[in-house]
Amino acid sequence: MKIYGDLNSGNCLKVKWACDILKRPYTWVDIDTTKGQSRTPEFLAMNPAGQVPVVELDDGRALSQSNAIIRYLAKGTALIPAGDYAAAKMDEWLFWEQYSHEPYVAVCRFMMVYLKKDVSELDSDKVKRGYAALARMEHQLAETRYLTGDSFTLADIALLAYTRVAHEGGFHLEGYSALRRWIRDGETVLGLPPVARA
Amino acid sequence: MKIYGDLNSGNCLKVKWACDILKRPYTWVDIDTTKGQSRTPEFLAMNPAGQVPVVELDDGRALSQSNAIIRYLAKGTALIPAGDYAAAKMDEWLFWEQYSHEPYVAVCRFMMVYLKKDVSELDSDKVKRGYAALARMEHQLAETRYLTGDSFTLADIALLAYTRVAHEGGFHLEGYSALRRWIRDGETVLGLPPVARA
Repeated sequence: MKIYGDLNSGNCLKVKWACDILKRPYTWVDIDTTKGQSRTPEFLAMNPAGQVPVVELDDGRALSQSNAIIRYLAKGTALIPAGDYAAAKMDEWLFWEQYSHEPYVAVCRFMMVYLKKDVSELDSDKVKRGYAALARMEHQLAETRYLTGDSFTLADIALLAYTRVAHEGGFHLEGYSALRRWIRDGETVLGLPPVARA
Repeated sequence: MKIYGDLNSGNCLKVKWACDILKRPYTWVDIDTTKGQSRTPEFLAMNPAGQVPVVELDDGRALSQSNAIIRYLAKGTALIPAGDYAAAKMDEWLFWEQYSHEPYVAVCRFMMVYLKKDVSELDSDKVKRGYAALARMEHQLAETRYLTGDSFTLADIALLAYTRVAHEGGFHLEGYSALRRWIRDGETVLGLPPVARA
């Protein structure tokens, strides 16, 4: 299997982490979206949306959308809670991540890391909504060890990707002690070094 | 089962349509988000994100996020394609809908229908991205009858919800003949009257 992605992109890291934890072998193919590499005819044939990550399975079939990919790769494993309702509660977080977290937390980081903007130039509405997303996670993680309960699942992988580097988008996590505890726990599960956080 | 929702919200209609087509009985509970009815303590206990739709299952457990809900309700039915890869291709559309379609097509409609803005007041970037989403669908629907192939699935339910009323958000579908054909086909499947389109 090939993963086409950018190691600075949380969406791409979700796929890498899921493969790593599942011990699923893959070849990583670096794609520099800033150089148009996700807009070539070959890439668009795999994903007409022109976005990373994309996986190319061993039989040549392609799959895109980070959360759809990890859901596919993790089918039948402990990364998806057993039982239809528990799996649906995990899906709640996956869809919420793409709608209510990534467009604020990840986009602010994109502005600062990729576009070299200063924190003062960020859209204040995006910052506010980013903090609202972090507050919702804090609320949950004050109650449970991981987002869906006692077990580490795809919900944690999907949300760790950008929450772990939220400080790179100007977000301060001082008041979010449960969130910081969860980040450390997640880093341990994934075998990642602790990131330096402001 | 109870569905808490707003009949003007495409996200809520997805759940209604999935139940209707699956002949799954439910009680509809109208929630007026503009009057704070999704922010009461009782509602937030069901969905801390304070958003509709929410379903309350017969055993009292709650589920939110429209696409997570319909995925749960349709498990094991023909609305989810058979086979892990085919189901994952459907998931691609569900996640894409929430990230690359709803924030533009539905949000422009929200501005016009709920906030009574004029089309000239819409954010031009949102309009542009909305058309990009419609163009991607047109590209697919020129190739296949439904979004994932020959069969009507949750991908079609999720995308019909706001595409069918895109004109209410100022989008013109004249140049999108495959999309218009698909909307009519979808309306037939769902037993809906054709909407008047500009």
